[in-house]
Amino acid sequence: MVKRNIIPKYKTLWDDALRIKTIYDYIEKHSQNSIQELVKLVRQPSVSATGEGVQACAEMVEGMLQKLSFSTKLIPEKKGNPIVYGELKSRNSKKTLLFYDHYDVQPPEPLNEWKFGAFSGKIHRGRIYGRGVSDNKGNLISRIKAVEAFLETVGDIPVNVKFVVEGEEEIGSPHFPNAIRQNKKKFLNDATIWEFGGISYEGRPKIYLGLKGVLSVELRTKGASRDTHSANAPIVPNPAWNLIWALNSLKNERGEILIDGFYEKIDPPLQKELQLLANIPLEEKRVKRSLGLKVFLQQRTGRDATKELLFSPTCSINGLITGYTGEGSKTVLPKEAKAKLDFRLVPKQMPDEIFQKLTTHLHNAGHKNVEVIRHGSTEPAKTPVDDDFVEVVIRAAEKVYEKKPIIYPTSPASGPMHLFRNLLKSPVVSAGCSHAEAKGHAPNENLTIDGFIKGIKFMATILDDFS
Amino acid sequence: MVKRNIIPKYKTLWDDALRIKTIYDYIEKHSQNSIQELVKLVRQPSVSATGEGVQACAEMVEGMLQKLSFSTKLIPEKKGNPIVYGELKSRNSKKTLLFYDHYDVQPPEPLNEWKFGAFSGKIHRGRIYGRGVSDNKGNLISRIKAVEAFLETVGDIPVNVKFVVEGEEEIGSPHFPNAIRQNKKKFLNDATIWEFGGISYEGRPKIYLGLKGVLSVELRTKGASRDTHSANAPIVPNPAWNLIWALNSLKNERGEILIDGFYEKIDPPLQKELQLLANIPLEEKRVKRSLGLKVFLQQRTGRDATKELLFSPTCSINGLITGYTGEGSKTVLPKEAKAKLDFRLVPKQMPDEIFQKLTTHLHNAGHKNVEVIRHGSTEPAKTPVDDDFVEVVIRAAEKVYEKKPIIYPTSPASGPMHLFRNLLKSPVVSAGCSHAEAKGHAPNENLTIDGFIKGIKFMATILDDFS
Repeated sequence: MVKRNIIPKYKTLWDDALRIKTIYDYIEKHSQNSIQELVKLVRQPSVSATGEGVQACAEMVEGMLQKLSFSTKLIPEKKGNPIVYGELKSRNSKKTLLFYDHYDVQPPEPLNEWKFGAFSGKIHRGRIYGRGVSDNKGNLISRIKAVEAFLETVGDIPVNVKFVVEGEEEIGSPHFPNAIRQNKKKFLNDATIWEFGGISYEGRPKIYLGLKGVLSVELRTKGASRDTHSANAPIVPNPAWNLIWALNSLKNERGEILIDGFYEKIDPPLQKELQLLANIPLEEKRVKRSLGLKVFLQQRTGRDATKELLFSPTCSINGLITGYTGEGSKTVLPKEAKAKLDFRLVPKQMPDEIFQKLTTHLHNAGHKNVEVIRHGSTEPAKTPVDDDFVEVVIRAAEKVYEKKPIIYPTSPASGPMHLFRNLLKSPVVSAGCSHAEAKGHAPNENLTIDGFIKGIKFMATILDDFS
Repeated sequence: MVKRNIIPKYKTLWDDALRIKTIYDYIEKHSQNSIQELVKLVRQPSVSATGEGVQACAEMVEGMLQKLSFSTKLIPEKKGNPIVYGELKSRNSKKTLLFYDHYDVQPPEPLNEWKFGAFSGKIHRGRIYGRGVSDNKGNLISRIKAVEAFLETVGDIPVNVKFVVEGEEEIGSPHFPNAIRQNKKKFLNDATIWEFGGISYEGRPKIYLGLKGVLSVELRTKGASRDTHSANAPIVPNPAWNLIWALNSLKNERGEILIDGFYEKIDPPLQKELQLLANIPLEEKRVKRSLGLKVFLQQRTGRDATKELLFSPTCSINGLITGYTGEGSKTVLPKEAKAKLDFRLVPKQMPDEIFQKLTTHLHNAGHKNVEVIRHGSTEPAKTPVDDDFVEVVIRAAEKVYEKKPIIYPTSPASGPMHLFRNLLKSPVVSAGCSHAEAKGHAPNENLTIDGFIKGIKFMATILDDFS
């Protein structure tokens, strides 16, 4: 527990330059401790898709906030993975900054492609490795440590701080909207820092003003009640073929999504959003090298590629499984086939409507026997480019990184930002401590130690400037 | 080792009725021993797709033949799984009957759907359970035991007997053709009994005069060099979609195979083959119940369903795998995707040509980046309905089962019959001891003990009649 009431340097520290220098010094002096806290959190699995380690991880995060004298609560207590809620009042401000993070991680598979154990938290050549270290445990710790730095130096925080750390972000936050709606007052805030962000290949901080929505579904087809000999193919239905034909009806080879009405409500990007594109550096060569690609999809390049990435909705196959998948061959007709899909959605594409359009499309296209299971979803959301809080984050980034930040009018990724932006009406900006080779959602996810420590300073500066 | 030179009842046993009664009595009296031999063979895994237990199984089969004083050899010694070759001369005949069997089995997956261990050889309610018990270990043992019955009663076999027991039938017999061609003289015979057969739901023996060919392939597509976050979908190629589109180009929803020239050489069925269809009972209700189907594919029914089953070539997806296939969802773009396929081929469709047409089709249809891997293949083959040896097998079936056999002009399944039919010019007939619920290639494969023992008598009768 920090000693909040003993503040020897309180007066002098309210000199702007000295205060921030003292805080940065504290962060650097205690960097080993911050790294150890992060490694500890990474070593605690928390896979929301399977439930592995989730409860233990929530309790670990709650303990970290309690250590800083936050009032905490795990909500909801009954349904879904707990949300770690924490709040700490400032004695000097009525404004509230909310940090939205998540302690859950993507499944670590394929395990054999990890250089180090997926939950090892192994430190190697200046990087920390492990599932979730970049997405989102590194960011979470950086924010906690920024608060700690204020408490341990200034003795107070410059604004009220709330933490909302959920445990189902990676599965589309199925229980989060209800939890927010039922505890709306608790979550009210003047500005929200979203979970992610990092630096570009050139070391420029990346700041995101919005998120796409997402809708995850599973398609299942069934054939005979058991696997059968493929000699029976002329009379026994093959669910793998039915799945192929159903999937083929969703998207053509030009990448056009064929679901009736899929694109109908979408607005074109605003002029001031398109202007930001000019300031987003093209890192094509590096991205291609990192991904082992000669060209991007559809030969997209330059601003066109960036524009598609930020403003286009998508339909992706995440996984397929049916029949025999081992070595060699097995002449079998499988009894069932499954596909996992996600749709990334842009403003005005609501998951409920898209799900309805998908099922209607499959029915109308003759794929009546395809079962459609809905997994998680979130709506798209955006904060206007000219909001005051956007300016605060940009200034903080410039101070810490000494480079012009890259402002993305939206991220191509997703999360429940809409609850804060559209329901709680807060400005929401995403900024964090990741980097361009962090390999989120993939084997060998990692975070640089340097980036992590700078990220703590960045969050401390936002806290300072927002006051 | 049987005592071939002590033949007390030799003379009297050459009275037809007494001889066959003595042999049947021997088979019944020694049925427990036959069952134990089969269980022992089933307990020895021999999965050609993975290599599990293959060598040990070959040696076990060789030992069984040596025990009956067969001269044996394991060929080839270097490449591929060994073929167990055995020959035993009759002192009373110059004719040679060859038994073609295989000791290899399909992979046992999915393991969790087996009631008993896949290699347990568990006996339950008059059936023996285990991978390969029906396809093909039960038939193999029934033939060995038929020879034993002659040796132990008559003291000789009525014709020369050769056994060819290969170990790669379930993976398309990749090394078998070369082994036959290089040892052609060794394999010469006057008639061949093929590996499989059994009784219908009504207890009528099923006799097959041909086999479809088969070509097994694998299609692989690649995207980025690693799994990536699906937010990148607008610029990163998704190999799962490329695989879907490539597969969709192969077959339409009416079941028509779209590969250019796929059907071009096929002859329509002969009149006398079509006449046999009238004698093939429709077991639709039972087959549908067993497979949990309300209707067959394309609503096929009656003679039309049987005709399609026997005379149509097919293209089946045997398996698909890509990306995340666990619980819930994972928003990932997979780095590669794989499909396993088999084509069942009818006379004049040669696997080499079909493989060429497949690769040309994929190339021409724009799927240039689909890698096509060839697994095993065999050509189609047929023996004419009016061949003398067909008559021998029909008569033996009528004696043992006391019912009119069902004659299939061809089976819908496949195997390297063409090497015996087309290269060695033997008449080849497939007949055996399986049953309608044997679940070959599927979980809970089984054989009835009653059918197994009758199968030994059936083979003994063929040996006797062929002389």
